[in-house]
Formats: sequence, C-alpha cells, structure tokens
Amino acid sequence: MSAVDFEKFVERLADASGEAILPFFRTSLATEDKAHGGVFDPVTEADRAAEIAMRRLIESAFPSHGIVGEEFGDVRADAEYVWVLDPIDGTKSFICGLPLWGTLIGLTHNGRPCYGLMHQPFTRERFSGDGEAAYWRGPARRHAEPAWKAQQAAAAEERRKLSVRACASLADATLMTTSPKLIDESLRDAFFRVEAKTRLSRYGGDCYAYCALAAGHVDLVIETNLNPYDIVALIPIVEGAGGIVTTWDGGSAAQGGAIIAVGDRRIHEAAMRMLADG
Amino acid sequence: MSAVDFEKFVERLADASGEAILPFFRTSLATEDKAHGGVFDPVTEADRAAEIAMRRLIESAFPSHGIVGEEFGDVRADAEYVWVLDPIDGTKSFICGLPLWGTLIGLTHNGRPCYGLMHQPFTRERFSGDGEAAYWRGPARRHAEPAWKAQQAAAAEERRKLSVRACASLADATLMTTSPKLIDESLRDAFFRVEAKTRLSRYGGDCYAYCALAAGHVDLVIETNLNPYDIVALIPIVEGAGGIVTTWDGGSAAQGGAIIAVGDRRIHEAAMRMLADG
Repeated sequence: MSAVDFEKFVERLADASGEAILPFFRTSLATEDKAHGGVFDPVTEADRAAEIAMRRLIESAFPSHGIVGEEFGDVRADAEYVWVLDPIDGTKSFICGLPLWGTLIGLTHNGRPCYGLMHQPFTRERFSGDGEAAYWRGPARRHAEPAWKAQQAAAAEERRKLSVRACASLADATLMTTSPKLIDESLRDAFFRVEAKTRLSRYGGDCYAYCALAAGHVDLVIETNLNPYDIVALIPIVEGAGGIVTTWDGGSAAQGGAIIAVGDRRIHEAAMRMLADG
Repeated sequence: MSAVDFEKFVERLADASGEAILPFFRTSLATEDKAHGGVFDPVTEADRAAEIAMRRLIESAFPSHGIVGEEFGDVRADAEYVWVLDPIDGTKSFICGLPLWGTLIGLTHNGRPCYGLMHQPFTRERFSGDGEAAYWRGPARRHAEPAWKAQQAAAAEERRKLSVRACASLADATLMTTSPKLIDESLRDAFFRVEAKTRLSRYGGDCYAYCALAAGHVDLVIETNLNPYDIVALIPIVEGAGGIVTTWDGGSAAQGGAIIAVGDRRIHEAAMRMLADG
C-alpha cells in the first residue's frame, strides 16, 4: 500500500468515526430511553458507534491486522500490524460539551507505534505523525457537494508541519495534565513538586494536550494510569514533531502507565529526576 | 436603535475583535522582538489589539456610552449604558493553543447587565443573552466573497436557543471551575466539599464553562476572585437560558467576586448552603 493510499485510508477512518460521534455531541446526557427501558448515554453510544465504524473499515481493508479498542477489546493483538483505537479520548470534555476530546487512531508495527492520528471532528482538526508530524484543519464539511465545490473547499484547508519548541528549563515550561485528581495518589506529591517548578500549568486537555505540545504551545505533559489506547496514537505525533514521550522512568510509552511528554530533551531529564525522587 | 441594528452592531464588534486576535493565536509565545528591543507577547498584543478595535467602534457608534475594559481601564463608567469588555478571557487556554478562550462583550444599563456575548473566533461560536439566550456557529469565513457565496454560507450557519437543563441535586451535578488553584485559598476547602458531593467535575474552562452551562451540558460553575469584566457578559447568557448567577452569598454577580452559576435553582440553594459553611 502506497503512502497516498494509506493516507486516504486513515482519512476514511477519521471521517467515519467523526460522522458516528458528532450526532451525539452536545445532546442531553443520560436521557431516559423509555423504548429500551434504560438510560441513553450519548458518550457510550458515540464511543461504540465510532469504534464499530472504524473496525469495519479496518477488517475489510486489512483482515490480517490486529485491533485493540477501548470499547470492544482485542482481536489479533499479536499481529504484525495492530490498530489501537480510542473513539473518544476526553470523555469528560465530551460530557461537558467542550471541544477538547479527540478520536485516537494508532498503528503499531511489531509492537512499536509507527503511525498516529488525533481527530477533533467538531473543530475539524487532525494532528498526525509518522516520522514527521502534521496539522490539518478542514473547511466546514458539506455532504454530496459537486467536485468543483470540493476543490474550493480543499483550497480553504489549512495544512502545516508540526514542530515542538525549545524550552531550556522547567522554570520556562508550560505544563499540562488532564487533572491532578487523575494522577495516581502515590505519585501526586511528585507531580505537584514538578508543577511548582514550572512557569504555568493548565488542567483539562487529554489528547489535545499532547497535540498542543507537538504544535509548540506546551512544553510538558505529565499523567499516570494511561491505557495503551490513550497514548499509542499520540507517540508518533509527539515524536514526529521532535518531542519525546516515555514512562516516568524513561521506558517505552507504548504500554501506557505513568507518562511524561516533552518538547525539549533538557526538561525531560530534569522532570524525570524530580518524579523519581517521589 | 432597533433590535436588528443592535444585533448588527455587536456582530461587528465580535468580527473586529476576532480579526484582531486570531493572527496571534498559536503563534510562538514571548518571541524576542529585536526591532523593539523587547519581548513579543502574543496574548498581550492580541488582547490590546482587540480592545482597541472594539473601543473605536463603540466610541464612534455610541459616544455617550461608558467602556470598562481589561486592558485600557474605564471611561464614563457611570454612564447609563456601559460596555464591559474582556478581549481574551481564558489567557492560559490561549497560551496553550487550546480553543477554550473567548471574547466577552457585555453591556450594562444603569449598572445591570442587559446584554452579553461570548465569541470564540477559532471555533466560530457565539453565545449571546438578552432576556433569551442563543447559540450561533458560523461557517468558515472567507474574505471578499461574492454575495451569492455569502448566502450559501448563511445557509451553513447553525442557530438555536440555549436552555439550561434540570438537575435535582448536587449528586447529579456536573461541576466546572477553571482551576482549584484559582479558588481563593480561604475558600478552597468549601469548594472541595461541594465538589466532593457532585457526580463529575471538570477543570479548565473560563467563559466556556458558563456557556456550556447555558447550553445544558454543565450544571454548576464555582469560582472566586472574578473581575466584573470576567462575568458581566456571561450573566445575561446564563440568565437568558434560564439559569442563575450570583455571588456565593446570593448577591448580584455584576461586580464579580466569588461566583456561583447554576442551571437549576435546587442546586443553587444546596451549594450556597455548603459554601457558606466554609
């Protein structure tokens, strides 16, 4: 499969998941679903609909590939190529009607993350990584439009390479974490010690925080208790932009756990030292 | 001035501030500005450019009105009508490249907030309130387009009324606050006690949290140390959607301070009681 074909395929995945999710975004939460005698939970429904749509496309195009997803477990998880899917990373954002959640589509080759995409269908943003890292923002999508209009729309797209920024010390760093309450309790003091050294910290972000780091707006992301599907897709994005993602002790981030992402190697070492002292 | 003329005027304000701010969003922070021998801070530059643009339009259209702005202080603050402006509410979001900041444009009549607009130019969203509350999301803007294309664009707009949702008790409530670190230290324990009673809490939001409440996705926003320009524009939006915004002791929110906003009166009383016990 050529690079162009692959790009078209992941675009189809992103389109399909976005179309599955958006109808559920900003609908009432947990409306009683009388017809089914239960409670209608838009997040779960959207999560499941998007993962089903993506699994169908992958099973059809790459029947030998494995799939690891948040909602429907693992198939062929030991295959050469494995897709790692999280339809809605940032469930709380989704529930609160904030556009900071994203769909994570990762691909590993022999266990190593080799491609990643974060898709935010409400803002029409995509952050991708595969050696390099790229940003794409599309125009408002319209269905069934003639080709000449699609060409006009293409002209309104925004595309650029992503690149982390330099940051010499923690004292210069902007830190993000989704919530200090999500930091493992036994590690929270260590987190707060690093946070106290930074110039600025901002809570609430999920996958968007790693993308903001890849885009050069944030210097440091620290989290714990991540699942593989929370981070696999983000690793090629951060690394493709020139950044580093590891566990707190410097190991591979591909299995999740306690994660640190940085744009500049100098603060990676400084932060890891402080986190280890915890 | 008719309602239509007024709507057109605040649209011009929002357009002008958005055009002033967006070129600075997601640019490098604090790049050294050698030509001027100083440091270039995109947030401050964007804040100032947007407030200047809005002040010019207001001074020209309503020379007798007062203006209270974050960046350039007060003129005629005791006028019958006073505009209360915060070009970038959510500075940390702006710095981190997250689209959760907003431009706040409020209008008071004899000191009472009578109109409010929150404009997020990156997502092209506007939340407004003037007795009722409304949501508007525009299509991607293109400059100098012919009239027939502008008409097409108008068809792609999304407009709807905003309405808070019911929430019977704190145990059912979704809470937002920008950051617990921004809660006044003497009041933080009281905040944490209320937070512990809620179903879900989400940090990071600024003005967007109040708009999410007006849209029925969030039930409770609790903050402290707000300035008038942080809250005046949001009061008509929340109230127009059927919600309540007061100080922690139930007084007018128009002067800022410790603020509580709710969608349902029942949790207003419950939360105020717990906050008072702090």
